[in-house]
Amino acid sequence: MDTKISLHHILGGIEPIDTDWIARAQDHTAQLAIPPRALGRLHIIAEQICGIQQTLEPTLKRKSILVMAGDHGVARSGVSAFPQEVTMAMVQAFLAGGGGINALARHVGAEVWVVDMGIVPTLDTDTLPNRHRLLISKIGAGTQDLSEGQAMSHEAAEQAIMTGYAHAARLIDDGEDLLGTGDMGIGNTTPSAAIGAVITGTHLDQMVGPGTGLDEDGVAHKKNVIATALELNRPNASDGLDVLAKVGGFEIGGIAGVILACAHRRRPVVIDGFISTAGALIAAALCPSATSYMIAGHCSEEPGHRHMLDHLGLQPILDLGMRLGEGTGGAMAMSVIDGALKVFTQVMTLSEAGVSQK
Amino acid sequence: MDTKISLHHILGGIEPIDTDWIARAQDHTAQLAIPPRALGRLHIIAEQICGIQQTLEPTLKRKSILVMAGDHGVARSGVSAFPQEVTMAMVQAFLAGGGGINALARHVGAEVWVVDMGIVPTLDTDTLPNRHRLLISKIGAGTQDLSEGQAMSHEAAEQAIMTGYAHAARLIDDGEDLLGTGDMGIGNTTPSAAIGAVITGTHLDQMVGPGTGLDEDGVAHKKNVIATALELNRPNASDGLDVLAKVGGFEIGGIAGVILACAHRRRPVVIDGFISTAGALIAAALCPSATSYMIAGHCSEEPGHRHMLDHLGLQPILDLGMRLGEGTGGAMAMSVIDGALKVFTQVMTLSEAGVSQK
Repeated sequence: MDTKISLHHILGGIEPIDTDWIARAQDHTAQLAIPPRALGRLHIIAEQICGIQQTLEPTLKRKSILVMAGDHGVARSGVSAFPQEVTMAMVQAFLAGGGGINALARHVGAEVWVVDMGIVPTLDTDTLPNRHRLLISKIGAGTQDLSEGQAMSHEAAEQAIMTGYAHAARLIDDGEDLLGTGDMGIGNTTPSAAIGAVITGTHLDQMVGPGTGLDEDGVAHKKNVIATALELNRPNASDGLDVLAKVGGFEIGGIAGVILACAHRRRPVVIDGFISTAGALIAAALCPSATSYMIAGHCSEEPGHRHMLDHLGLQPILDLGMRLGEGTGGAMAMSVIDGALKVFTQVMTLSEAGVSQK
Repeated sequence: MDTKISLHHILGGIEPIDTDWIARAQDHTAQLAIPPRALGRLHIIAEQICGIQQTLEPTLKRKSILVMAGDHGVARSGVSAFPQEVTMAMVQAFLAGGGGINALARHVGAEVWVVDMGIVPTLDTDTLPNRHRLLISKIGAGTQDLSEGQAMSHEAAEQAIMTGYAHAARLIDDGEDLLGTGDMGIGNTTPSAAIGAVITGTHLDQMVGPGTGLDEDGVAHKKNVIATALELNRPNASDGLDVLAKVGGFEIGGIAGVILACAHRRRPVVIDGFISTAGALIAAALCPSATSYMIAGHCSEEPGHRHMLDHLGLQPILDLGMRLGEGTGGAMAMSVIDGALKVFTQVMTLSEAGVSQK
């Protein structure tokens, strides 16, 4: 991990994307043999990437998805339909290539990396398949229960962000053009909803949902747990690090770090669903300019997600009732992003097609 | 063209998709290492294809998009932002590989075929690039102006459908697993809106939009032209052939035929936007069972499209503000369909992942 750079230094080094290049890209779109902006969002996506890459020949050859995994003390409070052990089982499934994210990442030509940001068990690395796909950077053995105190120290929160930053920065320096965020952590819709409620100011009634499959009573209980956590911890909505420390998760901090690395090194980053967008809220609270590098992959079925996206001013690419996490919505959206670039770079101009302009 | 089969015979041979196989596919989905139905629409898409293919190992190796082209007498009445000559220019662009549909079809691994269902000019086939991609099956040199009488005879309407059927049936017999519909025809949102209004019963205020870029006055004029056409021709909403003959287009009939071929030969068919869905309305009016083979690729920005999809009971995969036609929305959606199959066939089961069920 790069220890020579501080979070403060990173945040100061992030610049908004280049609006001159976006304007030039819009001029190019206007020349295509297509009625004015008739491919809608595909044009906007391509132009955003032109702005980020400062080119009219945008390419996304190499793609990676970072699945950040962590456990949550609050999982013991009955906020999930699945037991905590499932976090490790799914990490192993991802390494074996058998998760939803693996299927969709293969489909779009993206590599999957799993980062142990702090799951409870210690993985037996001798028996793991594809060991090189696992990056072990435990901040702790799960967070503390946020309904009983703060989830982690402020130092751990900063370490989580810097860990995500370091892994993403290394991938970018190795040549990745596009990163996607993903998550695995039983119970992690609870800290995500808490972050969403604090940063967006949305009421818990709109922010808290069933996660992997709670019933109505389960959702009501989860809402009470989060209300208790917010009352007890009183996170400062304008301080992303404080929110992360008090009601966050290690993997959520890691996701925020991945996003900040992309913004710092001028790469587009595809945000997955509810948990990833909680990480995006932390990143945007720390550095509002980082949002211009984000592409929202999809809108989750988890009801609070729409409020998070609205707060960030992001329009999701897909809206397919998905609520799995892992990075799956972002992975599927990468295909639309690739399609947008192919339209931008491959379609004839009006004059090449012999179509006179109005 | 297969002249031994009649439309009547085709319609009688279409069966709804196999609900037993859909149920078996749902059982398989429930075994995946994913919370119950957490990938939303991806599960539904995969299960629909299992039902169509009668298998739990669905595959879509070969894909083709049929871009049906035709001209419209009503284009002379000032209903489009572009002149009629653009139809031929774009047909040539598609053959040269430079259209939006070419970029997106290449992206998803689909072949593009252009069918001249009745554009006004006669193409000089000696100078065309990729001549083998053009299928010439002119029903006429453009339709008649539907605001002055019926757009085509009932015989021509049946011939248009049978032509689309024959081209699609040949592709399927040659081994295509998935077809997509596309269109090119300056003025063709006008007949499509007329078809939509008649078959769905939606008021013209909700059904008529700007197409490739009419201003407010242009839309008002187009609405008047369609109102005149409906008043004059009085199409019978329950008779798809009558609607097509009186207010349709050659390419719209061809699209209906492509869809009926897929239903008849048990292949899924991806419907593109406003014009393709007008063809789907004709197909469904002729044979309601055909709808179970349809997959709606996207929801067009053209405002009436949503009403057409609702009438057919179809939920679009994408909603990206696209309004180009050509098959572009369907092509982009093919990637999501492929992703859905990969999830279905590649994700581990809960027991393989060592996750105990609730």
